[in-house]
Amino acid sequence: MKTRGVLVIADGLGDRPILELKGKTPLETANTPNLDRLACGGIVGLVDPYAPGVPCGTDVGTLCALGYDPFKYYKGRGPIEALGAGLQLEAGDVAFRCNFATIDEKGLVVDRRAGRIREGTSELASSLNKIYLSEDTVAFFAAGTEHRAVLVLRGPGLSPAVSDSDPGTACEGRPMRKVYPLDNTPEAAKTARLLQKFLDIAKEKLRAHPVNLAREAAGLPPANAVLTRGAGIVTTIPLLAELYKGLKGALIAGENTVLAIGRMVGLEVFSGEGITGSYNFDPVVKARLALELIKRFDLVIIHVKAGDLAGHDGRWDLKIEVAEKLDLLVGSLLDGLQAGVHVAITGDHSTPCSVRDHSGDPVPAAIWGPAVRSDLQTHFGERSCAGGGLGRITGSAFFNVLMDLMGFTSKLGA
Amino acid sequence: MKTRGVLVIADGLGDRPILELKGKTPLETANTPNLDRLACGGIVGLVDPYAPGVPCGTDVGTLCALGYDPFKYYKGRGPIEALGAGLQLEAGDVAFRCNFATIDEKGLVVDRRAGRIREGTSELASSLNKIYLSEDTVAFFAAGTEHRAVLVLRGPGLSPAVSDSDPGTACEGRPMRKVYPLDNTPEAAKTARLLQKFLDIAKEKLRAHPVNLAREAAGLPPANAVLTRGAGIVTTIPLLAELYKGLKGALIAGENTVLAIGRMVGLEVFSGEGITGSYNFDPVVKARLALELIKRFDLVIIHVKAGDLAGHDGRWDLKIEVAEKLDLLVGSLLDGLQAGVHVAITGDHSTPCSVRDHSGDPVPAAIWGPAVRSDLQTHFGERSCAGGGLGRITGSAFFNVLMDLMGFTSKLGA
Repeated sequence: MKTRGVLVIADGLGDRPILELKGKTPLETANTPNLDRLACGGIVGLVDPYAPGVPCGTDVGTLCALGYDPFKYYKGRGPIEALGAGLQLEAGDVAFRCNFATIDEKGLVVDRRAGRIREGTSELASSLNKIYLSEDTVAFFAAGTEHRAVLVLRGPGLSPAVSDSDPGTACEGRPMRKVYPLDNTPEAAKTARLLQKFLDIAKEKLRAHPVNLAREAAGLPPANAVLTRGAGIVTTIPLLAELYKGLKGALIAGENTVLAIGRMVGLEVFSGEGITGSYNFDPVVKARLALELIKRFDLVIIHVKAGDLAGHDGRWDLKIEVAEKLDLLVGSLLDGLQAGVHVAITGDHSTPCSVRDHSGDPVPAAIWGPAVRSDLQTHFGERSCAGGGLGRITGSAFFNVLMDLMGFTSKLGA
Repeated sequence: MKTRGVLVIADGLGDRPILELKGKTPLETANTPNLDRLACGGIVGLVDPYAPGVPCGTDVGTLCALGYDPFKYYKGRGPIEALGAGLQLEAGDVAFRCNFATIDEKGLVVDRRAGRIREGTSELASSLNKIYLSEDTVAFFAAGTEHRAVLVLRGPGLSPAVSDSDPGTACEGRPMRKVYPLDNTPEAAKTARLLQKFLDIAKEKLRAHPVNLAREAAGLPPANAVLTRGAGIVTTIPLLAELYKGLKGALIAGENTVLAIGRMVGLEVFSGEGITGSYNFDPVVKARLALELIKRFDLVIIHVKAGDLAGHDGRWDLKIEVAEKLDLLVGSLLDGLQAGVHVAITGDHSTPCSVRDHSGDPVPAAIWGPAVRSDLQTHFGERSCAGGGLGRITGSAFFNVLMDLMGFTSKLGA
């Protein structure tokens, strides 16, 4: 029998002991009666997003949390960002993360972010979109948030094995890098040549663009060059529906990378007011939307970004607040859901306040619902989950366990 | 932020219930207040060196304990022994473990160890070193401890797929085996032919060697043949410094195999007085050296062999003694280290006294230090570690977790 489920992915969930909290973590310190209800009635454990001690990026950690093997399907950040910017991708496309940047007359990079340009980037991007670089290869270009953009090259025989034109952070004042192939294949040579051609055309087109003329008139740095990095080739990734008996899933998120991954695996994505990827997200809005969507989807995934931000900022006080908002979200779910629906929570990686970056620590996780063999744990925290009935498993295993409890897995063998 | 760490690898750590100890293990019986301090303030768990139920050799178990996948990098015992004997190896070399042996006039193996010869083996080995077997292939030969030696063949197109000339234990009285290729490649054929040529030359040279003439005059069995086994091809293994952000590591050990592996992965190795691979090792000498080295290395690894010896000897009384010396070592570390340094302990495999050999039982393990989410366990023993916060992880995962807590891992994805 199939049941429905809501999965909360708490970005950056999991922390390390904090001296000011008497050696407790923010989650252990926070007042979380609803998360504890989940732990009490459900089964808890520790989840290594990819493997013990391996810190994951949000992209890799989210793929793992959705059941995928990142080494099979993760081919660089470019394709994920391109999907996030709303571009339609095809297998074989090579995609790049881009910055609009400012270069001087000598071609030196003056500002890698073109003064963190916000206005006019769509117009700039349009002027670089659908440029034929050869008879068989076309460039698609789209603006992202602020100075960010994405480039997709589409044509036969392309390769992601090309160098970055972006000289990298702390390299301002140096020239843009020439693109060169990173291996000896004709594909890499072709891609490097066409990418360089695109970058040269971009400089010409951007120099004379009205948006830049206006910026210069206003004393702002013009967005007169494109820097590329994170080349990745687009592969076909099986949809969740193909892997799990036609699973119909929805994703509520405010973060572009996560939304892009959601689209990639065939989730219907929901964003909008109150559903931000910032501290100011509204837990009740997210929960209410989930309660609405669960009527027509098998699985509703809610992504909450804010804990990761607090970790990066080293702000355990804010991480406690986020944990309590997460608790409110889970409380609204538990109160509003019909009997028989599973509720699960995990993270894409830990972001300890003391590290101010992602770490390889496992994240606490729980599943609650009718099919669960509950354990003796009564609190949802890093240490209590270590003693839970789920044991210590990987991110993709955790997703598989949830799918199995919900009745969406298929037998291996007969 | 990076922190420093000391890792104790206790060879043969972990045992099974012993009737005479009322079903306890030697480690559970020993008085170990310092190991318990480690468990109490830190996090414990069970480590499967390679995988649950798989007994590992010291070579494989040590590679795993240092974070490596043995199936990727372990290519037979020969290369490790050759490194242990101090030979410089190059990728593509094929190395063999050797015995000096005694054969009679008919070529039958009379003694596989040439009377456990100790004197004169360097002179014998010199006479077999740097022999050109063909225009492009040269043999290097060096003595090891007692009757042991190593052979390295260097030249283009060699293969480890050749049979042993050693007829094996319990085969004395039988002839030395002819070497033959183990697959149909020209590389295996070439290697078998040149190895056989070397073995024939060795018989000629050893027969007339002054060391052997003197042995025969004294009524001792001459070392008049070389038996080969454990062929392995030398591959390039990435250094720990390449894998973990420039990690600078030192290894304190008295055992040749472990020292060889240490050199192979780029550890600076320390041996000498008190630092033996036997029962008589001095725990305080090892700890003091570690306290000295931690001032200039990120990671200091201390290898302790004696527990493995006690297991092989089936001596639970000695294994209890070793556990208490290990405890003294850890106590000296905890007392002498500055705050902020991580201390970890694991094993390369279990050597239960009842088995008198390596078993596939997991080994107890612990990590102690500022970044650790401690658990509720207060004792360091096989059974208490089973309930610890680390859960049950592999040897290489355990090393990765330590590296992550110390700040030496890199993010997967972005």
